[in-house]
Amino acid sequence: MKPADAAASVSEHRLWQRHMAMAAIGATPKGGVNRPALSPEDAAARKLLCSWAVARGFRCLIDEIGNLYIRRDGRDSTAAPVLTGSHLDSQPTGGRFDGTYGVLAGFEVLEALQDANIATRRSVEVAVWTNEEGSRFQPGTMGSAVFAGARTVADLLPVADRHGIRLADALAQTVAAIPDAEPRRTGFAVAGYVEAHIEQGPRLAIEDKTIGVVGGIQGLRWFEVEIIGEEAHAGTTPLSARKDALLAAIAMVEALQRLMHDPDDVLRFTVGRFEVFPGSPNTVPGRVLFTIDFRHPDALTLQQRGDRVAEVCAAEANGCTVTVRETALVPPILFAPTVPGLVRAAATRLGLPQMELLSGAGHDAGYLARVCPTGMIFVPCERGISHNEAENATPADLAAGARVLAEVIVDLAAQ
Amino acid sequence: MKPADAAASVSEHRLWQRHMAMAAIGATPKGGVNRPALSPEDAAARKLLCSWAVARGFRCLIDEIGNLYIRRDGRDSTAAPVLTGSHLDSQPTGGRFDGTYGVLAGFEVLEALQDANIATRRSVEVAVWTNEEGSRFQPGTMGSAVFAGARTVADLLPVADRHGIRLADALAQTVAAIPDAEPRRTGFAVAGYVEAHIEQGPRLAIEDKTIGVVGGIQGLRWFEVEIIGEEAHAGTTPLSARKDALLAAIAMVEALQRLMHDPDDVLRFTVGRFEVFPGSPNTVPGRVLFTIDFRHPDALTLQQRGDRVAEVCAAEANGCTVTVRETALVPPILFAPTVPGLVRAAATRLGLPQMELLSGAGHDAGYLARVCPTGMIFVPCERGISHNEAENATPADLAAGARVLAEVIVDLAAQ
Repeated sequence: MKPADAAASVSEHRLWQRHMAMAAIGATPKGGVNRPALSPEDAAARKLLCSWAVARGFRCLIDEIGNLYIRRDGRDSTAAPVLTGSHLDSQPTGGRFDGTYGVLAGFEVLEALQDANIATRRSVEVAVWTNEEGSRFQPGTMGSAVFAGARTVADLLPVADRHGIRLADALAQTVAAIPDAEPRRTGFAVAGYVEAHIEQGPRLAIEDKTIGVVGGIQGLRWFEVEIIGEEAHAGTTPLSARKDALLAAIAMVEALQRLMHDPDDVLRFTVGRFEVFPGSPNTVPGRVLFTIDFRHPDALTLQQRGDRVAEVCAAEANGCTVTVRETALVPPILFAPTVPGLVRAAATRLGLPQMELLSGAGHDAGYLARVCPTGMIFVPCERGISHNEAENATPADLAAGARVLAEVIVDLAAQ
Repeated sequence: MKPADAAASVSEHRLWQRHMAMAAIGATPKGGVNRPALSPEDAAARKLLCSWAVARGFRCLIDEIGNLYIRRDGRDSTAAPVLTGSHLDSQPTGGRFDGTYGVLAGFEVLEALQDANIATRRSVEVAVWTNEEGSRFQPGTMGSAVFAGARTVADLLPVADRHGIRLADALAQTVAAIPDAEPRRTGFAVAGYVEAHIEQGPRLAIEDKTIGVVGGIQGLRWFEVEIIGEEAHAGTTPLSARKDALLAAIAMVEALQRLMHDPDDVLRFTVGRFEVFPGSPNTVPGRVLFTIDFRHPDALTLQQRGDRVAEVCAAEANGCTVTVRETALVPPILFAPTVPGLVRAAATRLGLPQMELLSGAGHDAGYLARVCPTGMIFVPCERGISHNEAENATPADLAAGARVLAEVIVDLAAQ
């Protein structure tokens, strides 16, 4: 029952093989994966995991929003379980490790505990949260939001994807595809949650560290900016007589870059969607729609700079009309010190180079932090590239993260 | 046989009614028209014109590329005819007058000659050139290019639209829809060509003139700029580690605006198509494609500034790779003085306020100028707006242009 036994039983080879088997489901030609939430590929990935679980004698359970749990019973079946996990759905051109790693590292810990014949006081469960990505059904982190009571199943069932398929129907098909899983009520008591994940950024690689001790998740504000100008003939209309929506939008993005300037490079400012209408080479654009993704760990910075977005855009309208809508606001999350402390201590015991950081991306851990002591373990991904088919990580780093996870889980399960 | 008789017989009311009847074909909810080249709507518009022609005793002819000719015979059937006309196809969200006016003003002149019982020496024909706009099949001004020998029918027949429909098939359907039109060989000898058109710019309106005496057509260069950066996660990737294709593209457009700066406001610089990939709010853009439409009446300016586009873009690449392709080059066209001189004289005789100008847009007249004395007559359009469903013109201005056209045609047909 020593934590070191669990970490020593983590198999780098087995963990990597499981990743490769999972990556075959929804594999893309460029080496990534396309596993939309609640798609046949998502169901197949869950089914494969359940088959591994059943083979090892673990239980499979599924709740009303489709969150799947692989449970290794503890000695005290009445004690709240320790949870780990992440998600198996992906971006349309996603990578092999985002989400999948957190699930498979958790499952590797269950196998290591089994191999080392370690009996924990609390049960340990690997959660596969439904629809983390939000690229098929909006919003993302749906399963963990329901688990934490932030959303209700009833509100989400009517949500439709771009083809008009309702979440209710996609969910029913997914559940039907996993007959091994017993039904269960969501939102049960949890003793602690720890989620392993690739960093999805380059800081661990730049600092040459193996383990990121995640202190929290930075906050986020999303905006949608629409500029209405006037379509005109490109050959005949003097520039002084134009209301060019594209040139106005470009001036706005330039001004927003100045507003969002941060010499410390902590602030994240991204214009990811930028659509120009009608999009004909010889017509002056009459309409532009662009999005702003603005993130910062500090709530005050997020508030002050975000609150200036509308006025900065308006100042560059140049004869066009501009509308700014805020479409998302997620305050920064600071994890309680318990789990990050256990992660720090485990990495130290295992002699793994570590650094403290905040998550730049949102994660299911953000919702779990509302209901139990929560933390995350980051491992490096190649060049920090994620949400990209080229996403990559080394077997050694993935195993190192799983060893830290094993120690933290054993610690939490003993409490 | 006095020119004044023809001008006096032009009917403002009839010309306006013909416009309204034509505008009903492919009418859009916002008051514009959508008549793609060689579509059922284009065929219906041609068929309506032919029905009017037959009713007035004029002949209908059609050549291998679908150019339609409405002919009123002259006394000398062996003499090369005088041509006028324009086109009946439109932009997807086009207006009611672009192209249509040149055809209907020509037809109004034929009717006026008929009403006034004027026998001309040369025959007079109204040409409906195939696919001037180029928005369905590329390139535009296809019919007049074939007529002038600049392109061959054989080269154009395999061209497909975005749905994969070949020009050969669309053309065959259009021809089949107009059984009244006799087949004819393209590229016959022409004594002169004059095309009436809305200005598609605001200069006549600004100067409060009714008639634009068009001296030529400004030159044009088109470029396509492709920027390849690197997709990355918007929440995690520090700005210093990004290769953001959108920010590079924005810096390029800013630098191009400086390159193309013209205090005289003669130069036309437009970025009309601007596409950002993958277009997800939380992914740093990895690819941008944008077009440049650059026009100027002076060949040297066109050459010097256009030749600097690639270097100006490269200087702003900021870690991305950039490719600049030139996709079109049309040198400035200067009309021979004959027809512009007749337009000037006719406007003076009719007491219509006139000004000299160059066409900012390309027209079928650009190709006709290669094979015969050519000119154009511009009339004002509301606020200079064109390639837009809001395009508008007054019945009085349209009639004034048709009167000038009548005088010029009578002059040319007598020579």
